[in-house]
Amino acid sequence: MKLIRHGERGAERPGMVAPDGTLRCLADVIGDIDGAALAPAALDELRDIDPATLPRVPDNTRLGACVGRVGQLIGIGLNYSDHAEESGLPIPTEPIVFLKATTSIAGPHDALILPPTAQKTDWEVELAFVVGTRAQRVSEADAMKHVAGYCIVNDVSERAWQAERQGQWTKGKSHDGFAPMGPWLVTADEIADPHALHMTCDVNGDRRQDGSTATMIFGIPELVSYLSAFMTLEPGDVVTTGTPPGVGMGMRPQVWLRDGDVMRLEVAGLGQQETRVRVDAA
Amino acid sequence: MKLIRHGERGAERPGMVAPDGTLRCLADVIGDIDGAALAPAALDELRDIDPATLPRVPDNTRLGACVGRVGQLIGIGLNYSDHAEESGLPIPTEPIVFLKATTSIAGPHDALILPPTAQKTDWEVELAFVVGTRAQRVSEADAMKHVAGYCIVNDVSERAWQAERQGQWTKGKSHDGFAPMGPWLVTADEIADPHALHMTCDVNGDRRQDGSTATMIFGIPELVSYLSAFMTLEPGDVVTTGTPPGVGMGMRPQVWLRDGDVMRLEVAGLGQQETRVRVDAA
Repeated sequence: MKLIRHGERGAERPGMVAPDGTLRCLADVIGDIDGAALAPAALDELRDIDPATLPRVPDNTRLGACVGRVGQLIGIGLNYSDHAEESGLPIPTEPIVFLKATTSIAGPHDALILPPTAQKTDWEVELAFVVGTRAQRVSEADAMKHVAGYCIVNDVSERAWQAERQGQWTKGKSHDGFAPMGPWLVTADEIADPHALHMTCDVNGDRRQDGSTATMIFGIPELVSYLSAFMTLEPGDVVTTGTPPGVGMGMRPQVWLRDGDVMRLEVAGLGQQETRVRVDAA
Repeated sequence: MKLIRHGERGAERPGMVAPDGTLRCLADVIGDIDGAALAPAALDELRDIDPATLPRVPDNTRLGACVGRVGQLIGIGLNYSDHAEESGLPIPTEPIVFLKATTSIAGPHDALILPPTAQKTDWEVELAFVVGTRAQRVSEADAMKHVAGYCIVNDVSERAWQAERQGQWTKGKSHDGFAPMGPWLVTADEIADPHALHMTCDVNGDRRQDGSTATMIFGIPELVSYLSAFMTLEPGDVVTTGTPPGVGMGMRPQVWLRDGDVMRLEVAGLGQQETRVRVDAA
């Protein structure tokens, strides 16, 4: 299934993509696409619905982030060896874990509104997985049972804030709009191998990132198991698993997002995002 | 006012402390002590209630964390110059910001259950402030309007995970139970000067931390203003503002929490926490 959230920001309603590509509303069936809806039994109930019986979502309705009420938005840093190289940082021997403020979550086609203080804002196309059941100290062998599905996250990063303002990465990862998520959450049963997905990011039509989840250093079972040793993963948590090479920070000269730029992200099987950048004058 | 949450974990109900010290239940008045309840107008409505008219909370009822539905739990690192020194780290010239997973939040007297993999778990008595109204790019002059109140947070930290496992501090800050919060949220009007509060942490009756918020490097107006430039602070967000000297990491030899240890934290005007450590054998 492909699950969506549609409607105005803060008032999104649940929905799904029908086989014919039309968007259908699930508001009469469930409250949201959230942790409760992502439990295995709850997803099975949704699978039993004939989408043709659901009301159509009107054309041109905004898409929200495909997961609601996200408890933790967890990022994995430098999880593609060639991205670590382009960043001038050593290849990690353990997953690098950070948290993005959940207020950074945005719809897949929302404008990215940057404050005038932003200087070095960068793109990062990523495969994210969404937790379906609570995970505490789980083994790699059991890990995939806890994954409800996958979506695209653009792990937008302000490099000046992330690296030049002291301390942790949080500052550069948490601004409003820094985590466009979607367009849809694709349930795990529809992704035969999450470690073999082609992924691209174009900026203004120029291909900047062109990679594959096949070159991830730490795969999804390892990440679930590893994270669950340090913290409890709850249903609805989203883990975005790192970005392949081609970020602006790695270009020579370096390139940063500017007013009017358009990012177009795609991960095979997970759809496309298109985000226009606007620099706020105020 | 002193606001509390009482009842079993995950099913806490709102309440307040009456002038006579009894705990009173607010479940018939509001849904929770959360962002909605912390808006200035909502707090004013609570102030109009005569606590004597509210049902008493039964004796021996568990206290939960004093804020519910926390969106972001934000930590400030090395915010006391002498704690930075004992940690062997430079005194920061800008606030060091990190996020703790909100799943780390616990009641003020809950047991701290450590997994057997924990090696270097440490205490940190801290003053936390709770956001009452949304803050985006606010000035220091306007900052205090956004603060609803204060509480104690113990920013429990696993130093091996925080510093020896690569990358960001997140891993050492986010385990279940690593943020005992409370016993109560004291509204801002009752704290004449949050930058002049005596604070202590005893472990097994030995005084380990003995400091004052007077020695914070970055005060609360500066923290609110600074944070709000990088991310949006929402009602119900909690910012824990750093710890004074005396953590186990700074002792020679270093001392870490062990099974059966009892931490007793106090901040003047904000009550006391008592947390017993249990190391999980499983």
